[in-house]
Amino acid sequence: MRRLKYGMVGGGGGAFIGDCHRLGAQLNGTTELVAGCFSRSMEKNLSTADLWALPDPSRVYTSYQEMAEKEAAREDGIDFVTIVTPNDSHYAIAKCFMEKGIHVMCDKPLTITVEEAEELQRLAEEKDILFGLTYTYTGYPVIRQAREMIREGAIGDIIHVKVGHPEDWVIESVPEEPTTDLPWRFSPDKVGAALCTGDVGTHAEQLLVQFTGLRIQRVIAMLDTYPKYLPLETNTTALLDLGDGITGDLWASQIAIGKGCDAYIYVAGSKGSLEWRHMDPDVLLYTPLHGPIQRLEAGRGYMKEASNRLSRVSVAHHIGFFEAFGNIYKSYSEVLLAKLEGRSCEDYTFPTLQDGLDGVKFVNACVESQKKGNVWVTL
Amino acid sequence: MRRLKYGMVGGGGGAFIGDCHRLGAQLNGTTELVAGCFSRSMEKNLSTADLWALPDPSRVYTSYQEMAEKEAAREDGIDFVTIVTPNDSHYAIAKCFMEKGIHVMCDKPLTITVEEAEELQRLAEEKDILFGLTYTYTGYPVIRQAREMIREGAIGDIIHVKVGHPEDWVIESVPEEPTTDLPWRFSPDKVGAALCTGDVGTHAEQLLVQFTGLRIQRVIAMLDTYPKYLPLETNTTALLDLGDGITGDLWASQIAIGKGCDAYIYVAGSKGSLEWRHMDPDVLLYTPLHGPIQRLEAGRGYMKEASNRLSRVSVAHHIGFFEAFGNIYKSYSEVLLAKLEGRSCEDYTFPTLQDGLDGVKFVNACVESQKKGNVWVTL
Amino acid sequence: MRRLKYGMVGGGGGAFIGDCHRLGAQLNGTTELVAGCFSRSMEKNLSTADLWALPDPSRVYTSYQEMAEKEAAREDGIDFVTIVTPNDSHYAIAKCFMEKGIHVMCDKPLTITVEEAEELQRLAEEKDILFGLTYTYTGYPVIRQAREMIREGAIGDIIHVKVGHPEDWVIESVPEEPTTDLPWRFSPDKVGAALCTGDVGTHAEQLLVQFTGLRIQRVIAMLDTYPKYLPLETNTTALLDLGDGITGDLWASQIAIGKGCDAYIYVAGSKGSLEWRHMDPDVLLYTPLHGPIQRLEAGRGYMKEASNRLSRVSVAHHIGFFEAFGNIYKSYSEVLLAKLEGRSCEDYTFPTLQDGLDGVKFVNACVESQKKGNVWVTL
Amino acid sequence: MRRLKYGMVGGGGGAFIGDCHRLGAQLNGTTELVAGCFSRSMEKNLSTADLWALPDPSRVYTSYQEMAEKEAAREDGIDFVTIVTPNDSHYAIAKCFMEKGIHVMCDKPLTITVEEAEELQRLAEEKDILFGLTYTYTGYPVIRQAREMIREGAIGDIIHVKVGHPEDWVIESVPEEPTTDLPWRFSPDKVGAALCTGDVGTHAEQLLVQFTGLRIQRVIAMLDTYPKYLPLETNTTALLDLGDGITGDLWASQIAIGKGCDAYIYVAGSKGSLEWRHMDPDVLLYTPLHGPIQRLEAGRGYMKEASNRLSRVSVAHHIGFFEAFGNIYKSYSEVLLAKLEGRSCEDYTFPTLQDGLDGVKFVNACVESQKKGNVWVTL
Repeated sequence: MRRLKYGMVGGGGGAFIGDCHRLGAQLNGTTELVAGCFSRSMEKNLSTADLWALPDPSRVYTSYQEMAEKEAAREDGIDFVTIVTPNDSHYAIAKCFMEKGIHVMCDKPLTITVEEAEELQRLAEEKDILFGLTYTYTGYPVIRQAREMIREGAIGDIIHVKVGHPEDWVIESVPEEPTTDLPWRFSPDKVGAALCTGDVGTHAEQLLVQFTGLRIQRVIAMLDTYPKYLPLETNTTALLDLGDGITGDLWASQIAIGKGCDAYIYVAGSKGSLEWRHMDPDVLLYTPLHGPIQRLEAGRGYMKEASNRLSRVSVAHHIGFFEAFGNIYKSYSEVLLAKLEGRSCEDYTFPTLQDGLDGVKFVNACVESQKKGNVWVTL
Repeated sequence: MRRLKYGMVGGGGGAFIGDCHRLGAQLNGTTELVAGCFSRSMEKNLSTADLWALPDPSRVYTSYQEMAEKEAAREDGIDFVTIVTPNDSHYAIAKCFMEKGIHVMCDKPLTITVEEAEELQRLAEEKDILFGLTYTYTGYPVIRQAREMIREGAIGDIIHVKVGHPEDWVIESVPEEPTTDLPWRFSPDKVGAALCTGDVGTHAEQLLVQFTGLRIQRVIAMLDTYPKYLPLETNTTALLDLGDGITGDLWASQIAIGKGCDAYIYVAGSKGSLEWRHMDPDVLLYTPLHGPIQRLEAGRGYMKEASNRLSRVSVAHHIGFFEAFGNIYKSYSEVLLAKLEGRSCEDYTFPTLQDGLDGVKFVNACVESQKKGNVWVTL
Repeated sequence: MRRLKYGMVGGGGGAFIGDCHRLGAQLNGTTELVAGCFSRSMEKNLSTADLWALPDPSRVYTSYQEMAEKEAAREDGIDFVTIVTPNDSHYAIAKCFMEKGIHVMCDKPLTITVEEAEELQRLAEEKDILFGLTYTYTGYPVIRQAREMIREGAIGDIIHVKVGHPEDWVIESVPEEPTTDLPWRFSPDKVGAALCTGDVGTHAEQLLVQFTGLRIQRVIAMLDTYPKYLPLETNTTALLDLGDGITGDLWASQIAIGKGCDAYIYVAGSKGSLEWRHMDPDVLLYTPLHGPIQRLEAGRGYMKEASNRLSRVSVAHHIGFFEAFGNIYKSYSEVLLAKLEGRSCEDYTFPTLQDGLDGVKFVNACVESQKKGNVWVTL
Repeated sequence: MRRLKYGMVGGGGGAFIGDCHRLGAQLNGTTELVAGCFSRSMEKNLSTADLWALPDPSRVYTSYQEMAEKEAAREDGIDFVTIVTPNDSHYAIAKCFMEKGIHVMCDKPLTITVEEAEELQRLAEEKDILFGLTYTYTGYPVIRQAREMIREGAIGDIIHVKVGHPEDWVIESVPEEPTTDLPWRFSPDKVGAALCTGDVGTHAEQLLVQFTGLRIQRVIAMLDTYPKYLPLETNTTALLDLGDGITGDLWASQIAIGKGCDAYIYVAGSKGSLEWRHMDPDVLLYTPLHGPIQRLEAGRGYMKEASNRLSRVSVAHHIGFFEAFGNIYKSYSEVLLAKLEGRSCEDYTFPTLQDGLDGVKFVNACVESQKKGNVWVTL
């Protein structure tokens, strides 16, 4: 059985996100981690390679540039690279590998400027690169159930959408009194013009896209910062224009005490509604007009194939965060394998470069709307 | 034991709202319904009086004007009047009784223009009238618990508030295809410039006020109409400026399939959060910073007296909609009795004329914001 | 409009249960409280009459015997009496009124011995008495929905039933160290051979009866006592033989910390299941075989008339404890009025004398099973 | 970094359980699958090895006996074997490897007779074998939180325990009309004298053990069979004697429509209660006497180290079924590695041979209790 070979940039030294990608990918058995530049420290680099049982230590590199060059030169070089570094470096790293013709899976958000994202899009077209982004929540099986049901008209025409991602990470972990000792996520240099909007707001934005198939046209955003000494916002509320008269709102927060990654989406249509909450990730609530609320559970016989093919456990066993990651890798690796083998593969269910670009535009539009006094800004 | 005597205008002929007021008031045993003009039809008027066991049929009147005049003239005339007619008539009816010195309990929203509301406020001051409004949700005991906890600093400084009242009444009951055969609630003549914003948006707005003690300073509102042929909006999303850098948002909807009066409020503070959902009306969720979510239940020993005095049933028995009405009447009648007897009574926990005026201003500001392209409008 | 006149024995001096009956009954507008012997203290008796606005103070009596005699002698005497005294006195009081031909509504459990219950049953037949019991939970509208659905075969043949009523009242209110200063509910003289089984176990038992239409044939019961110094049990677990190969279990507890009147029932059938929890009293969960769980909500258009006729509020407004009481009175008073007017009335949905007798037998069987080492005992 | 080498018997040809073990184990990075006899068909055997990327195809064996012999003979032979075959074969396979000194991880239930289980226990002592069992639910982090809290007295003395595992697998998958075409789980030859009690009843039994530290002393069990033509029971209700006057009950069902692996446990103590439901696997409900219910969430700062060390994801991300498996392997592999390296390791948190033996005794006692007419049977 052919397995895709891949390398990783970043993720070493105990970073949680590296493990999410690795463990998620490994659930599929379709990929093999063979190369890496996990850290700028060669010591951490090697200990990570040991911890993760990389088969050949000579494929641990001191820089991503070296990795791109050497892997591209090998006959058995990596098929794709996974990028899990801070946001500001995604652009340069992705570009470097793409120029060598190596496919890319990148952590979200894609880049910190729209220009960078557009440049990657141009390059991907030029080099015929398959580019995926790990908006994790979109990997839960029932998100596909929702997408299919909406496509087939189960809820009629969409009228209004509510989406969000509140959590309490910042307020739980940042001191109340001013400090300069903050992780990289708080630095505008590393994350761009937004903290909460980029970090969790884009999760909500992309959840909306994958769930409904709609895209945000314009936003009015209101950005708050607490604790006040922070350089970037920690709470974002936005009104959404989703085109064709469809409206919505979006809430992203990192100061919502009691909430822990409580991503949610509710879609009101003319014939029914659909609702999903990350707190109960394997359940989709469906209410047909004039009927009772139905609790659709992942893996059940009445669910669509598009959903059940992503359910790895028997009914009512829990689908965890790693499996959500794994499902994005599953789709990506299936499509990449088909591409490499010259087969066609219709099923693109992973977030793409276009989704990544839209995410960056969404963040920018929110920041601009706030600056201009909370007016409509077109993406 | 002295009981307050009251009369009712409207509510006859099987109108649900009349029964809510009557049954709610009657739970307290502090009031007695003795007069009424329940309908324009004298037949319905009398059958309602019979159904409700009015002691003296001669106090059933053909018009509210007659009722105001005759009751004011009696030695044992009514102490207050309850107004449960369509919105547009509240002003004239209230004014008529107030001019006779009769106190008023009125269904919400107060009036359909700000001018009318201000005129009533002026008149109330002049005539020393006690004026209450039945924003029902604010009658649930745990709303008082929240108010006290916030006052005492349990959640620190408020940062952000989310409040709403989604329901599916319109989409469940109105035909998809255009019709002119619609109830009075859809007529701008009867309800003013807004449907959903006035009907359920004001419930959310007042829930915010009673729960937090904050007042809305400015709004950006987005109003949608579905089915499209309706003359007024059925879905309202608003960004809120609550002063002192506190922000929030509000959602009111009558097209949210699967939602049934799912009023909710979540308040994020610097030291904790509080959350209430009408679906679980006797429960308040409290999360202190760094601690687990606590489920505070009405009537339990650890609850505050301000909450428990409104819990009429033993622990874990359900407090229904009539009791929420009843609690507003309880507070109103206690205060009115004290006033009539010349005693002081500090505990004003029922919504007042000021609250009613704010509600009308809120509705107007939302409508104006939408008209101007969703810009900030000051209340 | 004709209203039934009734009197009350017990319930004075601030007893919660008196108010439940009175407020529940009064929601219907079909009854009028005109007489009473609310307490052994004439002072409390009169103050209760004043508090509850009894129209004629001469109908406040010093003893229930006097009340039975004088009311029976009046042309406009009470149509029925409500008995809300401690359990041990139900028998004598009911008998006294029944002998005068006065109908009876009695708080549960019916009596403390089977012999007493059977004697009342005999007397009721002889005197043609309409006898009702207020097993409150059975008054919630969706219990009727369940009963109808089961009757119509929505869940096929019943296989297994789980029912219970855990609460933490005893452990919350009784001291850990031995004391003799305990309320009447702890005295075997007042409540018979069981505390928890009689107090809340019978609620569960009757919930099973009203929900499913089945009756308990045999039990194996296990009775625990905590705190250990109490004379009667506080936790009861029972296996149930429901006839025709149908099994079940029942849990009643007064030491279940965190539980507050969390009555529940789950019925597994061959074609579907039904579930109800008192924590969410207006919701019935229905799962057809191979289909998703459906959340059936009281008052919705898809609910049966038998359920919706008991929903007094518009959809999604809460139905409280008083309304559950009120619904039992509603049914009882409709049937009694029909009986008095010589009309037929098929709809007996209130718990009857037979239900009360079964409840007493159930308690006795549980106590006997425990004594004999947890063996099957036939009711 | 040293990794344990292991082999697997069974699990091939797409069996879900094989993947659970493999994916669970692989989450830790402490083990390496190097040998196997995944199926009796050598073709399936080899395709499974290919699918799972076994490094050396020569270590795929035609029989478990061959595997035990050859692996025991290699210097780099497997450290332990994982057994995931039907229940009746566990004994012979485990014995075979144990006799060669190879450690064992076995799927539950341990064996189908008590004699077999006792023989394995004897052998384990003789050969100093580390033996683990994958009672999956016990691998969720908050189960350890509960165990620690109970040990430290957070809920005082335990009074009563309710535990269960209802699901609807049989009724969803077996035809209503008699058939002989049933999977191996329905064959008494393969699973012993019980279906539901062994399959999910032991999950509940072991959940009780791991959560509370208590062990079942005696049971009264009631076993039902539906559809009636099945040779073994599909629904089990049992009263439990847990020693020291502590009681409980247990429900295991495979015909509970609407329930999907809804394992649960509620423990009532004298000072508080703890509750866990598999539907919300990362949450533990804790209620101190006189206080509100607290929702304890896996990974939060207020949780104990014993729990948080098993939380692999950041707060509020979901812990899935594979991770529950993984946590049992984590503990087992840590202890085994310590043992092999001559280090001491105190932390045995995986279910052991004693737990497996108790499980078999529990099943036997239930079957015997039913046969004897539902009487107490001592384990």
